[in-house]
Amino acid sequence: MRFYDGLGPNPLAVRLALAEKGVTLDTAFVDMVAKENRTPEFYAKVPTGTLPALEFEDGFVLSEITAIAEWLDEAHPEPALIGATVRERAETRMWARRLDLEICMPLGIGFQAGRARQFFVGRKTLPCEQAAEDFLKIGCERLAWLEGTMAGRDWVCGARFSWADLPLFSFLEFFGRRGKQEELYPHGAWLDGWRERVRTRPAIAAALAAPQPAAQAA
Amino acid sequence: MRFYDGLGPNPLAVRLALAEKGVTLDTAFVDMVAKENRTPEFYAKVPTGTLPALEFEDGFVLSEITAIAEWLDEAHPEPALIGATVRERAETRMWARRLDLEICMPLGIGFQAGRARQFFVGRKTLPCEQAAEDFLKIGCERLAWLEGTMAGRDWVCGARFSWADLPLFSFLEFFGRRGKQEELYPHGAWLDGWRERVRTRPAIAAALAAPQPAAQAA
Repeated sequence: MRFYDGLGPNPLAVRLALAEKGVTLDTAFVDMVAKENRTPEFYAKVPTGTLPALEFEDGFVLSEITAIAEWLDEAHPEPALIGATVRERAETRMWARRLDLEICMPLGIGFQAGRARQFFVGRKTLPCEQAAEDFLKIGCERLAWLEGTMAGRDWVCGARFSWADLPLFSFLEFFGRRGKQEELYPHGAWLDGWRERVRTRPAIAAALAAPQPAAQAA
Repeated sequence: MRFYDGLGPNPLAVRLALAEKGVTLDTAFVDMVAKENRTPEFYAKVPTGTLPALEFEDGFVLSEITAIAEWLDEAHPEPALIGATVRERAETRMWARRLDLEICMPLGIGFQAGRARQFFVGRKTLPCEQAAEDFLKIGCERLAWLEGTMAGRDWVCGARFSWADLPLFSFLEFFGRRGKQEELYPHGAWLDGWRERVRTRPAIAAALAAPQPAAQAA
């Protein structure tokens, strides 16, 4: 099977899950800057033209990060990232979707229709620039809400590191890069401490330090 | 355990999943019009103040419709709505998230910040009215895209009815009610046929016909 990797927070979240699992896949880097994900060949694999994606030997292509993360837990159960019990899985799925819709989605709209507008024009339909400002503000409000909601927890699901930690971490890590929008975010003791705890997990530290030639070019 | 039900497309999607499963739960209707989901007591259960939610006997509260649907499939495996095999589950999760992010999310923003703006002011932070127009247009574009992508399929996952059919159906069904935004959507043979196929499934037809006193009042 083949892993289609790319720039941005979504591929990063899956790359970090693979690292935590200790799973290495045959990987093809799809150059979004060169619009390699906007070709008829790629759309035939992934009708939304998004990355990352997993292509199976029989031709089935799985995209959407939560679906890939669930598949990883089914195919490589240990260490569990969705969860080892029904209750753990329920809690992980709940928090992953909450953070996705409440924070990653508005911050993503804010970035794509705001600072990265020139890059996304012609790649996807964008809302107006005022919408970018509004959603950036909404995402920041929800980051501040998360700060209070998470106080005292090591990880999003309490004592248990899980998939629920990875997409939001990857979004914030990506936006923390040069020229992105990190400086616009509220900071707080929980959020800063949590990001440092994720960043220094051995598998994640190694994955973040690995050379990403295409990412450096962008 | 108790099911917290309410108005709107998200509670409807879970209600339809329960109907397909033949599962009946002790249900409490939370009146969103009266802001019963904006009380300290409800926030203590569901920190996002959203519906629906499932409260377990030990006090754990599960919200987010995809997490509830996954739990339902784990607790009541037949008939499977997420899937009976690893591959089926992967496909359902992929399509459910695609339709969620590509269509339900923009149509939802369009409605909340547009026609339903007066209702949502003071209940959640809204983007500008132009954003509502822009996202309604984006959601409609993606409905037109879905029409082409789905041609020839009975259900979103092909021959298999699944959870991936329910949230989008529930959104369109909700928006089809008096005063909502259905008339703004593109129509097409696949979309219209699929909605009719979902609507006339025996369990779903019965659930849609059941009296919804609070919904009628709204």
